[in-house]
Amino acid sequence: MESRIRIDYSALLPFVSEEDMAGRQERVLEALGVLETGTGAGAEYRGWIRYPETVPREELRAVGEIAAEVRQEAEALIVVGIGGSYLGARAVIEALGHGFAPLLPAELRAGPLVLFAGQNLNGRYLEELLEAVGEKSLYVNVISKSGTTTEPGLAFRLLRKHLVERYGERGAARRIIATTDARKGALRKLADTEGYRSFVIPDDIGGRFSVLTPVGLFPMAAGGIDIHALLEGARAMMAPCSVPRLWENPAALYAGARNLLWERGKSMEILVSFEPKLLLFAEWWKQLFGESEGKEGKGIAPSSALFTTDLHSLGQWIQEGPRTVFETVIRVGTEAGRLAVPADASGMEDGLGYLEGKRWAAVQEMAYQGTKIAHHQGGVPVMVLEVPRLDAGFLGQMIYFFEKACGISGYLTGVNPFDQPGVEAYKNNMFALLGKPGFEKQTAAMAETRKRFPRGKVV
Amino acid sequence: MESRIRIDYSALLPFVSEEDMAGRQERVLEALGVLETGTGAGAEYRGWIRYPETVPREELRAVGEIAAEVRQEAEALIVVGIGGSYLGARAVIEALGHGFAPLLPAELRAGPLVLFAGQNLNGRYLEELLEAVGEKSLYVNVISKSGTTTEPGLAFRLLRKHLVERYGERGAARRIIATTDARKGALRKLADTEGYRSFVIPDDIGGRFSVLTPVGLFPMAAGGIDIHALLEGARAMMAPCSVPRLWENPAALYAGARNLLWERGKSMEILVSFEPKLLLFAEWWKQLFGESEGKEGKGIAPSSALFTTDLHSLGQWIQEGPRTVFETVIRVGTEAGRLAVPADASGMEDGLGYLEGKRWAAVQEMAYQGTKIAHHQGGVPVMVLEVPRLDAGFLGQMIYFFEKACGISGYLTGVNPFDQPGVEAYKNNMFALLGKPGFEKQTAAMAETRKRFPRGKVV
Repeated sequence: MESRIRIDYSALLPFVSEEDMAGRQERVLEALGVLETGTGAGAEYRGWIRYPETVPREELRAVGEIAAEVRQEAEALIVVGIGGSYLGARAVIEALGHGFAPLLPAELRAGPLVLFAGQNLNGRYLEELLEAVGEKSLYVNVISKSGTTTEPGLAFRLLRKHLVERYGERGAARRIIATTDARKGALRKLADTEGYRSFVIPDDIGGRFSVLTPVGLFPMAAGGIDIHALLEGARAMMAPCSVPRLWENPAALYAGARNLLWERGKSMEILVSFEPKLLLFAEWWKQLFGESEGKEGKGIAPSSALFTTDLHSLGQWIQEGPRTVFETVIRVGTEAGRLAVPADASGMEDGLGYLEGKRWAAVQEMAYQGTKIAHHQGGVPVMVLEVPRLDAGFLGQMIYFFEKACGISGYLTGVNPFDQPGVEAYKNNMFALLGKPGFEKQTAAMAETRKRFPRGKVV
Repeated sequence: MESRIRIDYSALLPFVSEEDMAGRQERVLEALGVLETGTGAGAEYRGWIRYPETVPREELRAVGEIAAEVRQEAEALIVVGIGGSYLGARAVIEALGHGFAPLLPAELRAGPLVLFAGQNLNGRYLEELLEAVGEKSLYVNVISKSGTTTEPGLAFRLLRKHLVERYGERGAARRIIATTDARKGALRKLADTEGYRSFVIPDDIGGRFSVLTPVGLFPMAAGGIDIHALLEGARAMMAPCSVPRLWENPAALYAGARNLLWERGKSMEILVSFEPKLLLFAEWWKQLFGESEGKEGKGIAPSSALFTTDLHSLGQWIQEGPRTVFETVIRVGTEAGRLAVPADASGMEDGLGYLEGKRWAAVQEMAYQGTKIAHHQGGVPVMVLEVPRLDAGFLGQMIYFFEKACGISGYLTGVNPFDQPGVEAYKNNMFALLGKPGFEKQTAAMAETRKRFPRGKVV
């Protein structure tokens, strides 16, 4: 690993001085210690900290072998999952894949199309997905710890039926790969009965921290990602992110700085990138921090933006709106992208002649510099995550860095970073409304709630 | 028009009582009056209020005719624009198109692929876009009032060159359609010199309010949208949205309620939908409200979420995080979507048997009901925009409704809803850094600024 990603503190100054930050060192390192020693709430879900090193070899080999088969046999792979069983794999595949993969002729694509289902309850989405798959050779990777989550469970019913109709029971069983619990749960049982190939979701790793386990690794490998480089990147950040010194540990620094900003009234963090391919990475990040910190009335509001696109949208609000926001910019190095601005032969007075021959990447770099200074002058603290380039290694670094920072940040915030009690609220109401067996009491209570629910005007 | 969209006030109770709201009627109606009579700041940019009625017939006919040619001749249309010249058309095309249009074989698509460029400064995006277009028959619609905006200007240079190389000067001129100023500006001049077909961006309509002008109408028509139904929908909302009574005017009610929530400490609005196809519509909405209100230290932070996907991501934060947020849910009627949950033949104990035979749309409706109640009980005020179904007519209604509400809301907030002074900040810095002719002074000042810019640790 030639180098690693780094946090540049400069544009946090003068909003949060290095002295103020240093004054926090003790608290930040205490949170780091709680995370590392497992003395905090949710300690049983810290398997991800060591997993890049401890991932079983035979599991990795199986991921590679079955992914190779899928790349050979499939024109489309549908990954069935929601939340942490959805966002991470999609984020990495989109970050490193072709920006218009679905439009490329199959011979120019590096492997099967990777599509997603089970991340919503939208029937039309599923109908159109199957229309789009058409006669394409199809594999399905169903990801669920229990096998009973509503969204992926229903999607899997439909897709399994579809596969059986197309390929017969045995053909379908060969084309379904399950990622689930090692021993228990409905999906594990089915996989064993039907002889599905399967991967294990470790017991000590929660959904939003699972992207570097087979949950993410298998779809990524099938999508053509170099998962060994990805894991190598994650391992490269293990030591830096556990150093017990604030100014040497980027995860501790990021966690500490955003916590201090939060205390000073910055209630929203915008994760910014100039790289369109990081759109889904920001969604992964939102789940990571939103679910880990958003509880007990606490938690920075996670938001995201793509620049320069959103400088013509949210940009005005960021520049001149309420000063309750800070930015974390993922700055990708400019070496990639050789496309240069062509001369204009039309004689159009577009005022852009001064950019002729400049690389787009160089122009975008000045947009980044100009935006950083503009937002800084407008009163927005800006942290910059320097990423030399978008490749599997550096993405692995980014994932591990944010996960580690999130664990530290959760303990700094004073919450359990590894639970998500609030996610049950809508589910329980939905089960009650749908009359799920075992929810008879809740169904009755819900009828009462709806009777008492306020009735306002409809205009 | 059989019916119209409506605001359901119920789940704002008891957070904002109808009495409190009624107490605001005078202020809200005053803002409405300022908007309608043109006595407020930015009054010269209110052309959009009447445009659905005043759109020139010959312009509409030309849009239809050239769109028909493009649908006949083109396999791909690249729309070049940024901000308001990008988001509206894309939002409508995605809302009403097939969810996986790029994957469908051409014979199953209703028309050309509609692709976008000029909305960023990313060279790799452009390279990959051209790879994806390949040998497909290509038209370009370049949208710019001036023709000198950096992002679309540079993309247009590249695409014009590409077209000339493929089709020659005359072929390129036939395949470029310009949407620009009626008389002045670099793009108008070029269009006249080269003989491009062209449409007019009205002088009295700013970018983010331009979706129902040829800026949005032409790409939409080329993409197969029924723009007559869209405009009919907009016209259907003109009367309801100008009624000078709070409880009869949905735009006034929405504007007034969000303003009251803002005053009571709700600093962020999340626009929520359960319909994946409304992802880009939410982006259009973010620009509309973010640019209109985010100034002078004011403005609700506009955010968005897709449920149930994001209930497994941001959901935790919304349910249990800081109580500084409210939701506006776009609820689309359930008549569409006939797909029903199949029986399971595998014997998997997925616990979902109680849903067999139910339509996905009905299950999703219970997810909506359950979520609304859960968030309401968690302390989140919820406004609901009831939309009978996703079609061109109701989308036209939604667009006009939000535009009108935004104008009212801007005046209620006490800002000029029609300017965007903050957008210049990054541009000016970027021009200075790039050494743009005419910016020599700023370039020198920028060198000073960078010298003085804080230097913090890099970790």
